[in-house]
Amino acid sequence: MELSMEIELKGHIIDSMILPKVLDTIMDLGGDFEILKLDVGKTKKDESYCRMLVRGDERLFRELEKLGAILPEKDAKTEPAPADGILPDGFYATTHHPTYVRINGEWKRVKDIEMDCVIVIRDNEPVCVRQGLVKRGEPVVTGIDGVRIEAPQRPREKDVFAFMTSEVSAEKPVNSTIKRLAGELKKLKDGGGYIIHVVGTAIAHTGADEALAELIRMGYCQALFTGNGFAVMDVEKQLFGTTLGMDKETGEVYKGGFRNHLVAINEIRKAGSIKNAVEKGVLKGGVLYECVKRKIPFVIGGSLRDDGPLPDTITDVMQAQDEMRKYIREADMCFIWASMLHGIATGNMLPSTVKTVIVDMNPYVVTRLMDRGTAHALGIVSDPAVVLPMLVSELKVLEDNKM
Amino acid sequence: MELSMEIELKGHIIDSMILPKVLDTIMDLGGDFEILKLDVGKTKKDESYCRMLVRGDERLFRELEKLGAILPEKDAKTEPAPADGILPDGFYATTHHPTYVRINGEWKRVKDIEMDCVIVIRDNEPVCVRQGLVKRGEPVVTGIDGVRIEAPQRPREKDVFAFMTSEVSAEKPVNSTIKRLAGELKKLKDGGGYIIHVVGTAIAHTGADEALAELIRMGYCQALFTGNGFAVMDVEKQLFGTTLGMDKETGEVYKGGFRNHLVAINEIRKAGSIKNAVEKGVLKGGVLYECVKRKIPFVIGGSLRDDGPLPDTITDVMQAQDEMRKYIREADMCFIWASMLHGIATGNMLPSTVKTVIVDMNPYVVTRLMDRGTAHALGIVSDPAVVLPMLVSELKVLEDNKM
Amino acid sequence: MELSMEIELKGHIIDSMILPKVLDTIMDLGGDFEILKLDVGKTKKDESYCRMLVRGDERLFRELEKLGAILPEKDAKTEPAPADGILPDGFYATTHHPTYVRINGEWKRVKDIEMDCVIVIRDNEPVCVRQGLVKRGEPVVTGIDGVRIEAPQRPREKDVFAFMTSEVSAEKPVNSTIKRLAGELKKLKDGGGYIIHVVGTAIAHTGADEALAELIRMGYCQALFTGNGFAVMDVEKQLFGTTLGMDKETGEVYKGGFRNHLVAINEIRKAGSIKNAVEKGVLKGGVLYECVKRKIPFVIGGSLRDDGPLPDTITDVMQAQDEMRKYIREADMCFIWASMLHGIATGNMLPSTVKTVIVDMNPYVVTRLMDRGTAHALGIVSDPAVVLPMLVSELKVLEDNKM
Amino acid sequence: MELSMEIELKGHIIDSMILPKVLDTIMDLGGDFEILKLDVGKTKKDESYCRMLVRGDERLFRELEKLGAILPEKDAKTEPAPADGILPDGFYATTHHPTYVRINGEWKRVKDIEMDCVIVIRDNEPVCVRQGLVKRGEPVVTGIDGVRIEAPQRPREKDVFAFMTSEVSAEKPVNSTIKRLAGELKKLKDGGGYIIHVVGTAIAHTGADEALAELIRMGYCQALFTGNGFAVMDVEKQLFGTTLGMDKETGEVYKGGFRNHLVAINEIRKAGSIKNAVEKGVLKGGVLYECVKRKIPFVIGGSLRDDGPLPDTITDVMQAQDEMRKYIREADMCFIWASMLHGIATGNMLPSTVKTVIVDMNPYVVTRLMDRGTAHALGIVSDPAVVLPMLVSELKVLEDNKM
Repeated sequence: MELSMEIELKGHIIDSMILPKVLDTIMDLGGDFEILKLDVGKTKKDESYCRMLVRGDERLFRELEKLGAILPEKDAKTEPAPADGILPDGFYATTHHPTYVRINGEWKRVKDIEMDCVIVIRDNEPVCVRQGLVKRGEPVVTGIDGVRIEAPQRPREKDVFAFMTSEVSAEKPVNSTIKRLAGELKKLKDGGGYIIHVVGTAIAHTGADEALAELIRMGYCQALFTGNGFAVMDVEKQLFGTTLGMDKETGEVYKGGFRNHLVAINEIRKAGSIKNAVEKGVLKGGVLYECVKRKIPFVIGGSLRDDGPLPDTITDVMQAQDEMRKYIREADMCFIWASMLHGIATGNMLPSTVKTVIVDMNPYVVTRLMDRGTAHALGIVSDPAVVLPMLVSELKVLEDNKM
Repeated sequence: MELSMEIELKGHIIDSMILPKVLDTIMDLGGDFEILKLDVGKTKKDESYCRMLVRGDERLFRELEKLGAILPEKDAKTEPAPADGILPDGFYATTHHPTYVRINGEWKRVKDIEMDCVIVIRDNEPVCVRQGLVKRGEPVVTGIDGVRIEAPQRPREKDVFAFMTSEVSAEKPVNSTIKRLAGELKKLKDGGGYIIHVVGTAIAHTGADEALAELIRMGYCQALFTGNGFAVMDVEKQLFGTTLGMDKETGEVYKGGFRNHLVAINEIRKAGSIKNAVEKGVLKGGVLYECVKRKIPFVIGGSLRDDGPLPDTITDVMQAQDEMRKYIREADMCFIWASMLHGIATGNMLPSTVKTVIVDMNPYVVTRLMDRGTAHALGIVSDPAVVLPMLVSELKVLEDNKM
Repeated sequence: MELSMEIELKGHIIDSMILPKVLDTIMDLGGDFEILKLDVGKTKKDESYCRMLVRGDERLFRELEKLGAILPEKDAKTEPAPADGILPDGFYATTHHPTYVRINGEWKRVKDIEMDCVIVIRDNEPVCVRQGLVKRGEPVVTGIDGVRIEAPQRPREKDVFAFMTSEVSAEKPVNSTIKRLAGELKKLKDGGGYIIHVVGTAIAHTGADEALAELIRMGYCQALFTGNGFAVMDVEKQLFGTTLGMDKETGEVYKGGFRNHLVAINEIRKAGSIKNAVEKGVLKGGVLYECVKRKIPFVIGGSLRDDGPLPDTITDVMQAQDEMRKYIREADMCFIWASMLHGIATGNMLPSTVKTVIVDMNPYVVTRLMDRGTAHALGIVSDPAVVLPMLVSELKVLEDNKM
Repeated sequence: MELSMEIELKGHIIDSMILPKVLDTIMDLGGDFEILKLDVGKTKKDESYCRMLVRGDERLFRELEKLGAILPEKDAKTEPAPADGILPDGFYATTHHPTYVRINGEWKRVKDIEMDCVIVIRDNEPVCVRQGLVKRGEPVVTGIDGVRIEAPQRPREKDVFAFMTSEVSAEKPVNSTIKRLAGELKKLKDGGGYIIHVVGTAIAHTGADEALAELIRMGYCQALFTGNGFAVMDVEKQLFGTTLGMDKETGEVYKGGFRNHLVAINEIRKAGSIKNAVEKGVLKGGVLYECVKRKIPFVIGGSLRDDGPLPDTITDVMQAQDEMRKYIREADMCFIWASMLHGIATGNMLPSTVKTVIVDMNPYVVTRLMDRGTAHALGIVSDPAVVLPMLVSELKVLEDNKM
């Protein structure tokens, strides 16, 4: 069905690439346009404005709306979900940008925004939920009317975070970046910010876990996400000084040492939980020990590869996601350290307004996590095992200077 | 506690590296040895024999037993599990090699052997089970007495499968390897073999899914393991010709196309299951369609990254493992196509006697899966997206020649 | 020194990202602008026009000119080179886009354009030469006056080549891309196009050399660039059936086989050259044999890793570059197969108008070669060892259909 | 031609894998053997001895000799080289292990041993030379008689260097490894050791060049090998604070900044050489500046990708190799930092007795360089850009403790 609509664009629409993307999209999706008014800000501080008449199908307007185009003001439409976890056909799929829905003439901000979910109206308020949690009969927003998003605009001030770039490379000044990042982190902590760390097994294997434990002690971690593998190694290291039987000093694989891993699981199972193991004195150090001691919440999300698992591991992946969501909603900054599965899972759930730092040797993981149209992301293609201790050193210098 | 025992080694113990590894292990673990008798096979067909006196701790003898050393004949010891999913402290941790337990003077083969599990005695038979499934009070094998494994010996005839090598490289004759592999596969199918394919999302993105569907039609797949991602893309492709909104012909990312993914999930949810969707005519082609049509079982194991998920996706990872185990016990050969998470999960559960083929562009994944001491493994560092269609072409040539 | 100039932009300056980049650049380099006139094409076929007043330093205007901005019409300035291979300080550094220089009021196209070189005036014509070849006293273009480049514009028709994208990924429909590429290649050959192939050692190791030889026989190769490694393996394979001693069928490393490599070198040294070896019947097949038989020129560029080298290998790298340049000037299309060193070297010398196809398993190499602002480039993150034979199969289908 | 010979093996021939490899090789190459005597060292300190009768072709005995087998004592045979750079057909190809040649009944150690070269007799002494440097008429060692190598034996004491392992992985305790490596390095320096560093461009891009300059000032570098790329960036950084136009602090690509690279080249060309540029005060800091100031020799080996090049760059690759060989002959330890081309070239020329450390994010490069049968190699799959500064920190701690 061919539609024709006047749309508006406002802000730094040229250097934030909004106008070019709008024109591109119209051409790609077989639409037509006529520019009715275009005021380009005459200096770099001035904002620009564009009004144009667009003809195309609904798919095109859905896309323009996602780019931040302002469509004619109407109330949002909804349809009831036909059954639990089943959506009406025309459902609106969310982005991870701040989103507003117009209800009875009033624009309301969508709660808990997250990409690739839907919007339901609960108590007259728009809430973003994943498909599986939609209840039969709930009003689900459909179509394109009455939804507006705030597309990220290129910040006028530059900081260590990039603006929507997927250009990741190892050939970057990583040493000065770590210094600058330490500054941002210190500032955030001083302002009471909420920082999440997502950690993969390499952090344990390489000895970077000691730096992570220190980071927790220093107050730079408000929540921690990891998998069963890292969690077991963290325990195994305390009990045996190994990870999967590999000596933590020499890297030699201690013969038969994989059994250590199974024993570590068994010890925690015997205690009942990691918290209990700390309280009973079974677990006397390590990353999770520091979390328990400092009441930092941690979520251990299960995966198909898991041994055991630990009693704390949430084996149902959807339940694990929902547990992670609780903390994600508080987040100001999120670090992803050598964690592909848990890192991508977290990345999928983060709103575009959370500052995100990804450190991984695999450029694919970094690109994948950067490539989400986020306004504030920093991808470091380097070895998290060495970057993490170096970041802690820099933070200590800053903390010492303060005093 | 210092032990002293006479151990024996038999077979091709020199070129299969068993004797060297035994000596190495004794030295590494601080033991001592005295060679009492050593008969080296005088020609390459003769087997060798070694008897030696070893002194060391229990840990050392555990390890020697894992290398195939024959310890003095005793019955196995067991202890009851103190609670559900909790092991007695001295539990014996399994390898993935064929394993025998001596009960009342009789050596019995362990059922369902799998690495990093334990052995319980059920109805007087030794069975390998994962820790989580051990029931309170069940007798769990402990210590080193009365357990014997068959260490893999270097095959006298060479085939396309390597013997315990972790040397993986892209600089190998992949083109002739595909031809030789087709021959092995044909032979296996003709002999009624059971073949499992584990598939990652790249197979859908790259268009190799069409070759996989053909492979199923040709009878070369008896079970299929995958994740929610691939399964949804397989449906999305039928409904929209896209994967995550990327056009299957041009690779262009169709604007707003990620919604296709969510719609595909919704359609299957509406139908109730993939099988129902096929029966209702909603799903008319693709890999899962072929499975349903040919009654090939498939397991969709959930992961933390999943959207939706599909009703067929098993969201509890331990339950998903157990479902995969059912088919793994039948397997003669297992292909792992571009699947890191599901591939490693499957690899962890495979006995060393199953022929395993791993095709991945990432040498790390190939090494990780090869590096399990398996007698018959073939790691191909190449693009599964092109290797799979090429393998199908070669199989067609062989099938045609037959007629 | 602060300059103030009116500049013009013409063409599809919005969706080709030219206008956004110009504004971006002015801001980044601390300049100011005032839009004097902006006519945006009202439909997607119309071109746009912009005139603006810009204030900034010379560095800024250098950059705008590189983006395709039209500066006020003046004749180009030159300064004599102070010595052989030494440039006047203000030298103009070239892009790889079509470039024009204004001499006595007339715009003349620069011959042999290539990035990161300079322009000298020889016989009143502008010629692009590398720094090392500039002769003392030659007039070298300096400053920004009188130079104009044609920035690549987004093509209105889409083909298999991307427009200036550095987004490379293995998650693309490689199977359909190979088919579409075969079509482009066939069309080019039928039109008398000139195709260069750059080949790395993996092509020999993997058995893809047989497909390459066939491609040459089929007429799809007008020049070939490679290194000493591939060239020696190509000979070694004919003499021994191995590459670096690895059996071409089984991939087993033939004991002591590295000597084969040295013998292959010695045999060609004895014959005097590859051509002589073919004529004397020493070399009876392979890629270089086909080149000699079909009079296809090949350049073997030396590298620091080389054994031998072959008498045909050009050990001086600058001389090797210059030899490659001869053929690059004829090129319509260039394939880079698994060749990092020679591929990047070639990429550096290609004008932006040559269609370029890079096939490599390493996304870094593909990104590096794509990321040159080229209008027609196709990066395939896949295994060249299987893509090359598949491309030949597709070409055969096309050739057969013709008849 | 079938030969029959009694061979001997001595030393730690079992756990150094020498006996197993010998048996393996005989079987692989279709030979036969009969063990005549085998004394296995009864304890881990005792050496073993084996005498066996072997039947097979010359190729087999060539291989056994390379594994360290002692063949019957005969004088070496030689044949004159038929022309400059051309070898007699039966030439003996060298390994990189210590090698002895029997001349007139006396075993003499081969000078300048290096793999894949040949042995000529000059002034009655055996010298290892590359093929291209053999002069017409020089006696070249042929066949297998009278050549003996010292196969590397597994060291009885463990240190940070691995024994002939190609198992490289990022999942190693990199943090403790850096500490242990610092200890080895300190010990070597204190003992007057000779350390070579091979450096790639990533060292400049990432800011690790500052740590390298410090390492030179601290006395831990006796020679430096690099390419034109790094050398130019090292200059560019001093002149402009950029590498290829990328800001050394922020990583932003300074518009038009690639010209900086060309200007850096031009400035050194104007000065005549890097040394002159330091003396004239053009170059005031950086890695090469430190080399000049401390009279540390550096070799800049040219490559096909080079811009410029600098006057110091040796554009003939064989000449560059020979220049590098001069310093390699002095080396006790060699570091390869993020340098694929120059690193592999150096690796090819190193004798197996030089301790080698390779730090690279690409496991392929690390494996390739480790996989040379070297007795003392340490491969670190991590980011050299952060490992290098951390190594310098650890060295400073050690230096400070000394005082």
